[in-house]
Amino acid sequence: MAQNIYDNPEFFAGYSQLPRQVHGLDGAPEWPAIRAMLPALPGKRVADLGCGFGWTSRWMRAQGAFSVLGLDLSQNMIARAKADTSDQAIEYRIADLDTLELPEAAFDLVYSALTFHYVEDFQRLARMIHKALVPGGDLVFTIEHPIFMAAAHPHWTVDEDGRKTWPVNGYSVEGERRTDWFARGVLKYHRTLSTTLNALIDAGFELRRVEEFAPTPEQIEKFPELAEELERPMMLLVSARKTETR
Amino acid sequence: MAQNIYDNPEFFAGYSQLPRQVHGLDGAPEWPAIRAMLPALPGKRVADLGCGFGWTSRWMRAQGAFSVLGLDLSQNMIARAKADTSDQAIEYRIADLDTLELPEAAFDLVYSALTFHYVEDFQRLARMIHKALVPGGDLVFTIEHPIFMAAAHPHWTVDEDGRKTWPVNGYSVEGERRTDWFARGVLKYHRTLSTTLNALIDAGFELRRVEEFAPTPEQIEKFPELAEELERPMMLLVSARKTETR
Repeated sequence: MAQNIYDNPEFFAGYSQLPRQVHGLDGAPEWPAIRAMLPALPGKRVADLGCGFGWTSRWMRAQGAFSVLGLDLSQNMIARAKADTSDQAIEYRIADLDTLELPEAAFDLVYSALTFHYVEDFQRLARMIHKALVPGGDLVFTIEHPIFMAAAHPHWTVDEDGRKTWPVNGYSVEGERRTDWFARGVLKYHRTLSTTLNALIDAGFELRRVEEFAPTPEQIEKFPELAEELERPMMLLVSARKTETR
Repeated sequence: MAQNIYDNPEFFAGYSQLPRQVHGLDGAPEWPAIRAMLPALPGKRVADLGCGFGWTSRWMRAQGAFSVLGLDLSQNMIARAKADTSDQAIEYRIADLDTLELPEAAFDLVYSALTFHYVEDFQRLARMIHKALVPGGDLVFTIEHPIFMAAAHPHWTVDEDGRKTWPVNGYSVEGERRTDWFARGVLKYHRTLSTTLNALIDAGFELRRVEEFAPTPEQIEKFPELAEELERPMMLLVSARKTETR
């Protein structure tokens, strides 16, 4: 099963202070780009894999989703998510994406933000999600970009001009990556971009949009520290559809 | 129009000595990966964009292609390609991909190796190729990987462990990149991976396979210098199909 770092008290304390946890979707600079990739929500049955505090689950209901199933490995996250809603159409449950089985053809949209890089077997997960979607259903997800994750020491360096530079090594060597992020030894799984995209194609998805988050000029003006995200691709955003005919 | 660096005598002299120019397809380590992405060739009408010396054009004819149109900006390349065949079903012509117009629905396969990164407007090119293909026709191409091309100073560095490391900066800043490669100031156009993939989707293509060339253990045993290509993605290989219904 996946490492449950989110229930590590030290990690959870730090993580809970991130702008995106304190301010919700408006604290996530990639949110406008994700929102542009989402299908219309009214009437949709949604699964939110790695729902965390449930910010997106609640937003989707507010946009008219028929129901939202929010799943997360962390008891801390699910407890807080449950405490933050009394909406009967939102159900929160603890689940491990490495072993999760969803009912067949039960969802119109599967959504996941910054979670799949904790999953060891993405091929299995992609096939399971494909089965759980109705024909024409959508999968929209974000992950840490493989270029952001690949290196043995993933931190900024500078080039000979002093320009912020992101190091890449071990790109084609897939598997475990351990980083120190609020706690030591947080476990993620590196896959190349092509492995991720081909897993979706092989599962029967049609790729509809691929984005690599970059801040807009307006975002950089408001939050100058975001400018460094022009130097490297930090997040990968993917929209894929279960084709009608397969 | 595109910079015609291949007719620069200094460049051409150096380029002509590359293993892939001396030994043809067997001198290109990515060739087995490309070959696995190609559709069956018998009876196919093929356009080879950036055909160079014509190694692939001739190979495709030998595999049973009905006809091959090989196009290249370089007079040097086209002259040598013409000299190397007497096959009437292979036609070589000088052409600039920045302005090229092919006849509509005239090809079953459009192929291009390591050429599109010289093209300024890939959106235009993708739409033009889509029109030139029959429904169900394939586009298979390789480019320098955007991670390989992005940085202001694209050359190996080392990380704190002494490991070979590839620098990335300016990834989201698309446009001209000038490098010194057999000649000074060779002009290429950097685009993010998502820009390239979305241009294909927007033109009406279905993405069938995305690969980032990595050498196999057998290749590394034979050519140990290839091991460094595990550290960074150097080439992007894409297979896309013009869907029947659009």
